[in-house]
Amino acid sequence: MIRFCLFGSGRMGDLYCQIITRNPNAELVGVINPNLPSAKRLTDKYGGQAFASFDDCLQHSDIDAAIVCSPTNTHLEIISQVSRAGKAILCEKPIDLSLERVDQCIALVEEHRVPFMVGFNRRFDPTIAALRAQVVEGKIGKLNMVLLTSRDPAPPPIEYIERSGGYFCDSTIHDIDLACWITGETPVEVFTSASCLVDEGIGKAGDVDTAMTTLKMPSGVLCHINNSRKAVYGFDQRIEVFGSGGMLQTQNQRDILLSHSTAEATDAKPLLKHFFLERYAQSFEQEIAEFISSLESNIPPSVNQEDGRRALEVALACGQSLREGRAIKL
Amino acid sequence: MIRFCLFGSGRMGDLYCQIITRNPNAELVGVINPNLPSAKRLTDKYGGQAFASFDDCLQHSDIDAAIVCSPTNTHLEIISQVSRAGKAILCEKPIDLSLERVDQCIALVEEHRVPFMVGFNRRFDPTIAALRAQVVEGKIGKLNMVLLTSRDPAPPPIEYIERSGGYFCDSTIHDIDLACWITGETPVEVFTSASCLVDEGIGKAGDVDTAMTTLKMPSGVLCHINNSRKAVYGFDQRIEVFGSGGMLQTQNQRDILLSHSTAEATDAKPLLKHFFLERYAQSFEQEIAEFISSLESNIPPSVNQEDGRRALEVALACGQSLREGRAIKL
Amino acid sequence: MIRFCLFGSGRMGDLYCQIITRNPNAELVGVINPNLPSAKRLTDKYGGQAFASFDDCLQHSDIDAAIVCSPTNTHLEIISQVSRAGKAILCEKPIDLSLERVDQCIALVEEHRVPFMVGFNRRFDPTIAALRAQVVEGKIGKLNMVLLTSRDPAPPPIEYIERSGGYFCDSTIHDIDLACWITGETPVEVFTSASCLVDEGIGKAGDVDTAMTTLKMPSGVLCHINNSRKAVYGFDQRIEVFGSGGMLQTQNQRDILLSHSTAEATDAKPLLKHFFLERYAQSFEQEIAEFISSLESNIPPSVNQEDGRRALEVALACGQSLREGRAIKL
Amino acid sequence: MIRFCLFGSGRMGDLYCQIITRNPNAELVGVINPNLPSAKRLTDKYGGQAFASFDDCLQHSDIDAAIVCSPTNTHLEIISQVSRAGKAILCEKPIDLSLERVDQCIALVEEHRVPFMVGFNRRFDPTIAALRAQVVEGKIGKLNMVLLTSRDPAPPPIEYIERSGGYFCDSTIHDIDLACWITGETPVEVFTSASCLVDEGIGKAGDVDTAMTTLKMPSGVLCHINNSRKAVYGFDQRIEVFGSGGMLQTQNQRDILLSHSTAEATDAKPLLKHFFLERYAQSFEQEIAEFISSLESNIPPSVNQEDGRRALEVALACGQSLREGRAIKL
Repeated sequence: MIRFCLFGSGRMGDLYCQIITRNPNAELVGVINPNLPSAKRLTDKYGGQAFASFDDCLQHSDIDAAIVCSPTNTHLEIISQVSRAGKAILCEKPIDLSLERVDQCIALVEEHRVPFMVGFNRRFDPTIAALRAQVVEGKIGKLNMVLLTSRDPAPPPIEYIERSGGYFCDSTIHDIDLACWITGETPVEVFTSASCLVDEGIGKAGDVDTAMTTLKMPSGVLCHINNSRKAVYGFDQRIEVFGSGGMLQTQNQRDILLSHSTAEATDAKPLLKHFFLERYAQSFEQEIAEFISSLESNIPPSVNQEDGRRALEVALACGQSLREGRAIKL
Repeated sequence: MIRFCLFGSGRMGDLYCQIITRNPNAELVGVINPNLPSAKRLTDKYGGQAFASFDDCLQHSDIDAAIVCSPTNTHLEIISQVSRAGKAILCEKPIDLSLERVDQCIALVEEHRVPFMVGFNRRFDPTIAALRAQVVEGKIGKLNMVLLTSRDPAPPPIEYIERSGGYFCDSTIHDIDLACWITGETPVEVFTSASCLVDEGIGKAGDVDTAMTTLKMPSGVLCHINNSRKAVYGFDQRIEVFGSGGMLQTQNQRDILLSHSTAEATDAKPLLKHFFLERYAQSFEQEIAEFISSLESNIPPSVNQEDGRRALEVALACGQSLREGRAIKL
Repeated sequence: MIRFCLFGSGRMGDLYCQIITRNPNAELVGVINPNLPSAKRLTDKYGGQAFASFDDCLQHSDIDAAIVCSPTNTHLEIISQVSRAGKAILCEKPIDLSLERVDQCIALVEEHRVPFMVGFNRRFDPTIAALRAQVVEGKIGKLNMVLLTSRDPAPPPIEYIERSGGYFCDSTIHDIDLACWITGETPVEVFTSASCLVDEGIGKAGDVDTAMTTLKMPSGVLCHINNSRKAVYGFDQRIEVFGSGGMLQTQNQRDILLSHSTAEATDAKPLLKHFFLERYAQSFEQEIAEFISSLESNIPPSVNQEDGRRALEVALACGQSLREGRAIKL
Repeated sequence: MIRFCLFGSGRMGDLYCQIITRNPNAELVGVINPNLPSAKRLTDKYGGQAFASFDDCLQHSDIDAAIVCSPTNTHLEIISQVSRAGKAILCEKPIDLSLERVDQCIALVEEHRVPFMVGFNRRFDPTIAALRAQVVEGKIGKLNMVLLTSRDPAPPPIEYIERSGGYFCDSTIHDIDLACWITGETPVEVFTSASCLVDEGIGKAGDVDTAMTTLKMPSGVLCHINNSRKAVYGFDQRIEVFGSGGMLQTQNQRDILLSHSTAEATDAKPLLKHFFLERYAQSFEQEIAEFISSLESNIPPSVNQEDGRRALEVALACGQSLREGRAIKL
């Protein structure tokens, strides 16, 4: 049984509370937010105690691990406190928006030898995990290309965009992590082209909403990522891997598996699952399950601070490539 | 909050206990089995108390409803006890293997005015429910044909076959209920052709394992059902409805949505979900949820004793048609 | 080079003229129709000479084979003339609507030892031929079930219906032939249920437009055929075969392979190929090609008078089953 | 009736001869090749006369148009001769490998006012043409992204590679033309990353076999192209367009539409059509048909010298981008 406290009480906090509550090997001990009523909203719903600070939490209860899903700019301070207290950490992505601060996080975690996992939940999606396993088993021979399509159903509010660290650190970072994980490599060259085609407000906020990124791996493997903030037909999440022996492709998910043929069209299907909470529900459960089992078995989590740092470094290079109009060598 | 007791502690009992335990509006009070250790196995796992009889259960606890998933030949006696006690009943299909005894059940239920639901769970599958809703909304115009494919991944043990009441009362009965529910009609003519092609032991036990049934509805709508005890590629469950304005088709379900293309074949996908517990997991949850909400709102359950009787009558006619080699008029 | 004359100058005559004209091993010598201007319409378009009678044709030209696609009730007389003249015959289905007259045709053909092929073109469709080849090769183990869906895009004119010999002899006969060919068996039991749901005029003409047929083969293999005179989404032609080792399914054909996803629906595709001339274009070409190569190599055609007789016998049994409301033993 | 002569007698020459021979509005007058026996091989097969030079051809026969599918380095000289003679020209892509020489071709064609079409056959594929028409009609709203996948079934011989002008001018040029045609725009920025992963020999010949290209259009629309010289599952040709109102995707083509489900995999399909001659057969026929009808109606061909020049310019920029490791502004 792992006893959890949780930093942050937004959408991700709510999700993690739900999952912990359902997991028979986890217990929700406390939710921490300097804005105590916000923390209380979650504990009223899921149990545990609300605390205004980590110190309060430590004084009142015994915890094993902290989930960090507070705003990104608070991560470093929280990681500092938690790692000094010797507790395990599951930190939402990105760890931070600055590589220097990420390096400080890594130094803290390593100095205090606390287990650390970064929340790249998509690795734990059963279909994506199966794809990667089959690549590793050689089911498509030698890997040549990876293509990732990741399009949101609708753009977030402009206030979210403004605090997000930009499209690449907020969203492309997931695809970057998957590209690295699937290929087993770290890019040597990054090129990004992007536009603002979905919502002018995003452009005014200094961000883009439509992007294509090319990663070149040391082996010569090429990766393509395309992102859009708005796909009217649902949350479009596909991966295609192509190799000397063939191809693997994931399919999008729907709640209703029904096709309709009429005098206008044939085989028309319902919209895709509409949001990441729905589409990736299983992945978050699996992520927590693996975190728990890694703590219980003393095996380091499979996705760690170095993975978090690497994906951030590449995401930052996407932004730089876009600004400078050139490929960035890493 | 509905307080449940449950009769029977086999596979279906285990499933219902799981679902009740997870449902925030339900409480598992007791499991009843004359073989007390078998009941205790479930209560050890899911909570509640084990009882050897319904009387014991009533003496020790306050219940609102009983779930009947004991062997079919015990249903009448249990329904008699529970309805006399004035408790609501959710009874697994078939209610009984004899129409006369089903009529006795119906008489008891109606005399004591207890809410009664029969466990035709497939109606509650989100995809099948959506298909039926779209038929009702006229999305394919006037209905002409219904085609149901229902093939098990593997035959049950011969002992199960021997006690099952035969393939039609055990399995086809689900498809018959769906055909009636989707068309909103009761067949006037039933024809069944069948063989034993999967397992000789099934034939020796006097049953068939491969069957095709044609139902004709009063409106002229035609229904086809095909059943097999063994589909090596998984649990094959498909419905196609065809009308003056088009067609609706359900797709089979897989856990992993991945396709593989090689020099041998393209777009190959993993096997289908392998068993009814997996494939119809959501439907059982929805069934219990509707049962609870019907009790809480005093609205009669949408699938009742008459539905159970009708499906049995048609299933028995399938057997008669096969034995006599002719269409049976109903 | 095979020199052809052709009886009949309707839609099928036009199609066969086209195919013969394109085939480098065939020559269109004459088109025969007592209504000479009708024959001339074809020869003006495709070449060859128009004749009012077979005798005229024989006097003026040297022919190797006759294609018979005149009205069904003229087949016997034509087969009689052509077989006496010792020429090969490709006869459209059905050979005749009466088994007695078909037997006379067979006797003539066998007496005069002329090569005879019946126009079950669907056997020559590349996809259907591949399906049957894979069944024969054991790709799905021991065969258990065959399901054939055959739905026209729109009903023919009532005048066509009136002269068609009824839905089973006109249309189901194709599916019956495929069922026999794929299973390698001849049914021992036939049951048909049918309605008039598409067009009242068809019912007034004494025919049905919506039908389901079950065939039982000596081995116990079960076949289902469903037919409709009107599928608004196009010409729906599917075959599914199911066996101890798996399943094969054919897919419908479209001219444009494009899918459309919007805020209303996903993966919507264009309508199916709309008519048999389009859908089965390749099959007719292959049929003629095989007929020619069988004549050139002196190997009897793969689909002969016995196949034509068998399919008719089963089609007639469908009608009898419908009229008498019982299964017909063959 | 258009009277054609044809320069070159390789694979493309054979294909064009076939198509012209089948087209009722075209006549094959002559095949021109300084290597006369090579030209004779085609005329023996398809008719017409073999000539060693265009002058010979003009002296002996009256022609309306020339098809130029000789080696690329001969195009300029041939275009010079044919345009001076005032005949229409259908020229295979690329017009030339040098922009300067392409400009000379354009000058000649415009000076002599001869109709000129460049052989971007893929625009005439019915599925691709339908996709573009639906984009133009606004079926996916405002266009945001275009993704083109174009992978050959197997690499050509090294000798072909050596004379091909490189992967981008030989192959990517088709995808570039489609991207420009579908978007109605000309790229302002080109970035290409590429590797040699398929065949070391290609790398030794100074070329690449695996490439990803990003095009940015003036409107901000982004295009991705991925190319590989070897897809073991067949000729992989897909286009996806994504916009504010939805998405259109083309599907790959197969000769046999059959899916196979077993205990190992479900829905496995045959390999894709294996080569461009098969996959794009219809497109070549349509291309010739449009060329003929443009000549007969005096409407300029829809794909002209400027399209040929633009695609080459972008293809050359791909190579430059790869060599210099940066985005090229156009």
